[in-house]
Amino acid sequence: MSPRSNPTRHLQKLLGPEQVRTDHESRYTASMDNLRYSILPEAVLFPADEEAVATILRMANDTGQPVTPRGAGSATTGATSPVQGGWVLDLSGWKQLHVDPLSRMAYCQPGVVLSRLDEVASIHGLLYAPDPGSARYATVGGTIATNAGGLRGAKYGVTRDYVQALEGFLPTGEFVRWGADLRKFAAGFNLRDLWIGSEGTLGVITGAVLRLLPRPLTRKSCLAVFPGHREALLAVQQILQSGLEPAAMEFLDAQTLHCTLTFWQEKEASLLRHLPPCLQAAPATAAVLLIEFDGSEEATATDLRTVTGLLQDAAIGFATAANGNERESLWKIRRSCSQAMFTLGPRKLNEDVVVPLRKEAALLDFLEELGKETGLPTPTFGHAADGNFHAHLMFDDADEEASRRAAEGVDALMRKVIELGGAISGEHGIGMAKSPYLRLQHGDAEIRAMQAVKSALDPANILNPGKIWTSCEVHRLPRETVRLPWDH
Amino acid sequence: MSPRSNPTRHLQKLLGPEQVRTDHESRYTASMDNLRYSILPEAVLFPADEEAVATILRMANDTGQPVTPRGAGSATTGATSPVQGGWVLDLSGWKQLHVDPLSRMAYCQPGVVLSRLDEVASIHGLLYAPDPGSARYATVGGTIATNAGGLRGAKYGVTRDYVQALEGFLPTGEFVRWGADLRKFAAGFNLRDLWIGSEGTLGVITGAVLRLLPRPLTRKSCLAVFPGHREALLAVQQILQSGLEPAAMEFLDAQTLHCTLTFWQEKEASLLRHLPPCLQAAPATAAVLLIEFDGSEEATATDLRTVTGLLQDAAIGFATAANGNERESLWKIRRSCSQAMFTLGPRKLNEDVVVPLRKEAALLDFLEELGKETGLPTPTFGHAADGNFHAHLMFDDADEEASRRAAEGVDALMRKVIELGGAISGEHGIGMAKSPYLRLQHGDAEIRAMQAVKSALDPANILNPGKIWTSCEVHRLPRETVRLPWDH
Repeated sequence: MSPRSNPTRHLQKLLGPEQVRTDHESRYTASMDNLRYSILPEAVLFPADEEAVATILRMANDTGQPVTPRGAGSATTGATSPVQGGWVLDLSGWKQLHVDPLSRMAYCQPGVVLSRLDEVASIHGLLYAPDPGSARYATVGGTIATNAGGLRGAKYGVTRDYVQALEGFLPTGEFVRWGADLRKFAAGFNLRDLWIGSEGTLGVITGAVLRLLPRPLTRKSCLAVFPGHREALLAVQQILQSGLEPAAMEFLDAQTLHCTLTFWQEKEASLLRHLPPCLQAAPATAAVLLIEFDGSEEATATDLRTVTGLLQDAAIGFATAANGNERESLWKIRRSCSQAMFTLGPRKLNEDVVVPLRKEAALLDFLEELGKETGLPTPTFGHAADGNFHAHLMFDDADEEASRRAAEGVDALMRKVIELGGAISGEHGIGMAKSPYLRLQHGDAEIRAMQAVKSALDPANILNPGKIWTSCEVHRLPRETVRLPWDH
Repeated sequence: MSPRSNPTRHLQKLLGPEQVRTDHESRYTASMDNLRYSILPEAVLFPADEEAVATILRMANDTGQPVTPRGAGSATTGATSPVQGGWVLDLSGWKQLHVDPLSRMAYCQPGVVLSRLDEVASIHGLLYAPDPGSARYATVGGTIATNAGGLRGAKYGVTRDYVQALEGFLPTGEFVRWGADLRKFAAGFNLRDLWIGSEGTLGVITGAVLRLLPRPLTRKSCLAVFPGHREALLAVQQILQSGLEPAAMEFLDAQTLHCTLTFWQEKEASLLRHLPPCLQAAPATAAVLLIEFDGSEEATATDLRTVTGLLQDAAIGFATAANGNERESLWKIRRSCSQAMFTLGPRKLNEDVVVPLRKEAALLDFLEELGKETGLPTPTFGHAADGNFHAHLMFDDADEEASRRAAEGVDALMRKVIELGGAISGEHGIGMAKSPYLRLQHGDAEIRAMQAVKSALDPANILNPGKIWTSCEVHRLPRETVRLPWDH
């Protein structure tokens, strides 16, 4: 039997049934990510070691078998759905982790979960700065593949800013190492950063060296309520121009705030009593900034005094978290707002757009108008210090008309974002969900150059095919009703 | 006349003699960089605008004419020598600069000089963090092309960490934009970071958006003298493990210290009186750390107290700069040591190697031994907090035997660096000078992948050909005796 006639059976003979699984449960689990668009792969591969990864890729490259690398599968864009079938390469079990406190570097296998990495870093008084909302699930490999962001982006940057070195395999099965576990490296082309954010289409990451920072000693949080989003987003500019550098500055629009408080009343009433009165008394149009400073005790205290002074005229309510419970309550609002939106509709289109700081209010004005035009809720929250907003359209996908309006709404949103000088994705990547809009962001010459690089590095087009370049109508994709590990 | 028969004359007809210069003086100036290896180009191009850049590249791509982009020409590796003739594309006159204090971004044309950028940033209370030794000459475009580093690398990173967006031209003459003037961007492959550090071989940069930081309010410097390099480099580890983050921590070995003080006695005797007594009384084997902290008045004062306490046993001499004159004297030692080395020999091989922090003393041990074996001075200084050392071999290139020993010495040094887990270049790049060692750093699969990317993006191989991959014997290259702008 030649590998070409049945690559999966051939691979199973070579690596055994534990490494090459073809049972339905394994295939179904690997068939989707958080977009919940399910396409069954032929097999799910759990390679035992690097030699197995090389064997898999060599065979895939020889036979043209699609290979979709997978970490936790918490991507929101369909980047991990094996849309052309073939094999899913699951590296979530590769969990070795070692921290060097002298060089402040973490040596990670790709399956290490971010919250575990930060926990081990904290033992050494260190911090892993990138903090996507999925940190309790998402893996090092997956967050590198998507160049994940998070709340601390404005002060600390994104995943890319913390990757010193990568090792792994080219689609041909050849082992490579990009960068080094050194703070400076200027020898040859930088394919490390080309791999970062390429969504598993250029190489398979089997190891990463990540940079850690000294862990801030203190965090101090406060919350400000504004009459509406314009006042809140003007305050963002004032804060940044004052020279303050919040570790996080989260914006919640009126719809988000309202649905989250409603959700709490139903599900987490016990926590409501820790909420500051200013929030409970907020008017229907109120928008909120949730601000955190980190650093030394003195510096954070000074920052909090400065921001209190800055906001005293513009804010109609202001609260600082006086203790751990109060801080926990404030941040719980932010952490639960994504889930709370389902009180506004059963299906969500979630766009992680970015706009320049001066255009934040224009974006929110547009979204308010868009809600009126489409008749759909458009709750929006985001990382106001770096212009990265999570804009949502909530709709019922059993309603064909509402689905159409949601799709048209996203299309209009993306065009507006580009008009404002922004980006169609700040931290989720393209995958399938953003693929219709890639050509709004990039011109022909740019796309051709990217595709030339793809062809040069993956001539047989085996790694995660059908993504980024292949446009799809995401709102029409069927969506599995399934409970994933991060669902509440 | 077809462009192919005489591309230079054809281009001159299109763009005029001001933009296409063929006089000897222009060609000689553009014929070399700080390696001083002179190859005359056919013409030096000073494009008036972006359309001219597109015209130039389209014609070069059609006719196979080599194009070598050039900023200040302060590269040390020969990266800017037009070794295959053709055209030098000089963008040092493109000097437009605009700073947005809200987004903390600088919009720069490629010819903006770094010290000018930082000066304008400082007006807004901002800092451009990358600080190569050449900052008073080097341009934005050139430092992006080489991913320049500098003294502040351990705390602040390198050029790459501050580039938000690039715009410019593919070798085919097509305009492209990589990244955006936004803090987050995750849409498509990252060709921005592929261009950064590619030494002008993948694209021509005509604009850059660079990130600025809040400018530290205070700087405080101190100097510690140790019995030898081992004690100094052990102290580096102690300092870093204590959680301190010096903005700079410069190491000078005994040879560097000695030749610099000698140089001063001859050239700058008036400054000598500001030197701390501990330095004037240093024994012949003494090595030095020059440490600077930046931040708030309180934080830097605390840092200085902490480091004083940490070093009180290991250091045989210690001084803090009590005023501006004393600080200036301390840093003048560091700034003049590169020039001072010529008191040890007329020709210098300057290698900007990197090693892991734990291997710094092993590198210096090796260099001491190498000096004995070759009979050549091996003065070494460097950025001790990030393991990036400038190791030198001083020799007389009129002496054939000494030249051979110097070349063999560099070869042995590069092998040692790789054995220690280091890098052959931390901040200068490969150019011509490091090309013989690229294959020590990268395996066949890595080189092939880099070359596949080069072929994909520059199919006619017109941009800066003959660099990085083409090995040359740098110590045999003739060297012009010419006074360049940065020579004292």
